[in-house]
Amino acid sequence: MGHRGQLFVLSGPSGAGKSTLRERVRKRFPDLWYSVSYTTRAPRPGEKDGEDYYFVSPETFAAAVKARGFVEWARVHEHCYGTPREQVMGHLENGREVLLEIDVQGARQVKIEMPQACFVFVLPPDVESLKKRLRRRATEGEPQMKVRLEQAAREMAEAPWYDYLIVNDELDRATEELAAVIMANRCRAPVILPRVRELVQPDRG
Amino acid sequence: MGHRGQLFVLSGPSGAGKSTLRERVRKRFPDLWYSVSYTTRAPRPGEKDGEDYYFVSPETFAAAVKARGFVEWARVHEHCYGTPREQVMGHLENGREVLLEIDVQGARQVKIEMPQACFVFVLPPDVESLKKRLRRRATEGEPQMKVRLEQAAREMAEAPWYDYLIVNDELDRATEELAAVIMANRCRAPVILPRVRELVQPDRG
Repeated sequence: MGHRGQLFVLSGPSGAGKSTLRERVRKRFPDLWYSVSYTTRAPRPGEKDGEDYYFVSPETFAAAVKARGFVEWARVHEHCYGTPREQVMGHLENGREVLLEIDVQGARQVKIEMPQACFVFVLPPDVESLKKRLRRRATEGEPQMKVRLEQAAREMAEAPWYDYLIVNDELDRATEELAAVIMANRCRAPVILPRVRELVQPDRG
Repeated sequence: MGHRGQLFVLSGPSGAGKSTLRERVRKRFPDLWYSVSYTTRAPRPGEKDGEDYYFVSPETFAAAVKARGFVEWARVHEHCYGTPREQVMGHLENGREVLLEIDVQGARQVKIEMPQACFVFVLPPDVESLKKRLRRRATEGEPQMKVRLEQAAREMAEAPWYDYLIVNDELDRATEELAAVIMANRCRAPVILPRVRELVQPDRG
């Protein structure tokens, strides 16, 4: 009768550096299972199906939504993204740790369905550096930029309910912090107790 | 209006390796303030007053107890140990992190008075290694050894109510774990939010 695996949810606004952080901790914790999301958007150059995302048609996505095939799903910038329920639940039930990197809408859904998950929010250090990062990745003009900044502001307003906040001002430090959250989580009493029951059980004379 | 500092309480049975772990994390986190305890026992060879302990007479100790000068105090193996209230409270009120390394009786008192502290319990990997460690440090014969083992068993029965359990089977790993608990604690939302209020405050059109 083992304990179930811990679910970690990594979220935050676009441009905060979530994916880089996620890739770094995956290297550090190879036993952490990362859930690849489904999406209706087209692959960008270099992206691989099944590795970066599962790229599916809008019809396939809609069918999965209808069949309750996603733990969470959200529409972000015209495209849909979803976390496959069966895989995630399977790993958790087998006691494995699972990592999701999802947007704030999706994180809210997970919070309602699985409140015992560990929620981590990645923040840019300030508005200026967020602008810089969004500008670097944006192919659109300034009006689109304004929309994205407003979107980021709405996303950052979600931060207060998360368990942990990581300010990504320095990537190495932010990586250490996310790794510490995962490692500390493994030391929580409910996780360790089943392993040390014999030691902590008082003698029954 | 800063937040108050976090209090970490490190406890566990004698022989689990608390002091070694404590010294290692102190090197890692020089800004963590370690509270040196008061004791009525005589200094062992090499121990320095004000560094390992404040060595005081039973009369001075009793007077401090009467004056509510200790956050917690306990009698362990014929001697008294106490944590000075004024210093600890002063640092916490100034927003500094404070580390206590105390026995389980004392930790219980802190839990009642300051339940928001972070409680970490250090465990030996198994009864055999606990025996070995106690034997190595014991100058007494086997009967005394039996008393100490029974004492350790009673102490270990306290583990379940702690926030974190660290199994000290490998010192480097145990140090990483304790460091992760401290670092993760610094990323908790209530600690970080005051620093990022401007970012997460939604626009008030």
